[in-house]
Amino acid sequence: MYYSFGPHKIDVEDVFYTTDLIFVFVNLRPVLPGHVLVCPKREVKRFADLTIEETIDLWVTAKRISNLLENYHNASSLTFTIQDGPQAGQSVPHVHVHIVPRKVGDFENNDDIYEAIDETEKELAEKTLDLDKKRKDRSVEERVHEATQYRKLLL
Amino acid sequence: MYYSFGPHKIDVEDVFYTTDLIFVFVNLRPVLPGHVLVCPKREVKRFADLTIEETIDLWVTAKRISNLLENYHNASSLTFTIQDGPQAGQSVPHVHVHIVPRKVGDFENNDDIYEAIDETEKELAEKTLDLDKKRKDRSVEERVHEATQYRKLLL
Repeated sequence: MYYSFGPHKIDVEDVFYTTDLIFVFVNLRPVLPGHVLVCPKREVKRFADLTIEETIDLWVTAKRISNLLENYHNASSLTFTIQDGPQAGQSVPHVHVHIVPRKVGDFENNDDIYEAIDETEKELAEKTLDLDKKRKDRSVEERVHEATQYRKLLL
Repeated sequence: MYYSFGPHKIDVEDVFYTTDLIFVFVNLRPVLPGHVLVCPKREVKRFADLTIEETIDLWVTAKRISNLLENYHNASSLTFTIQDGPQAGQSVPHVHVHIVPRKVGDFENNDDIYEAIDETEKELAEKTLDLDKKRKDRSVEERVHEATQYRKLLL
């Protein structure tokens, strides 16, 4: 079984939390440990397209998940970002919140994280065209292991 | 009358929207036209410190405001970000959502916007120590004019 993330299929094993409206999944290519995506089940492009219920669920979920991830990864801060539309760097046309636990010195330049996020998205968008890129993906086992750990935190 | 934004005082004339829990204000040094901040009235440092009610109000407000700003500035995308904690680039220790309307070519490198946001925050944080920096601020008139325009959109 899969969830749709734009044109991509996210295996349920990569998904570690859901509500009626939202799913949360581990990254094929996280920019840092604990980089996850929070996404509405309904495939809409822009934040403005969300209903009030989806908006609330997206961020109440993001808040709950992020706190657990920060502790789990012994991090001390969090980056939250929505690249809402192509001119904001969105490559997958399906609303999603990036959550990234942050630590001292994780990126030499603090904001390099946004370039790293963009690169990951672009690669993902290109993947259907360039199968060679698949070599960079994390293994299914690695992702499923991570999702399993997070599921335990959420029990 | 002022709202507290960390150690800073935000004049009510710079504030163009409020709810019981949230205030939204124009920027002293916007990185792009329409760059505003959405902030809980209660001074808390981290996103995790918000109540559920504040979390909901913060993002339902951000959604409403951002859509109007995008249209007003003839933009085609939006950057939303929370730098949640010092290791994520937060300089003012009071939760806030940056909203920035985006257009084709507004930054040569799309993600330079995050460095620009950081620079603005650092300058603001330093301002109490270095009064010379005040020269870079926009004038009160300019800010009040912008806030007035936005207030009209929200009627």
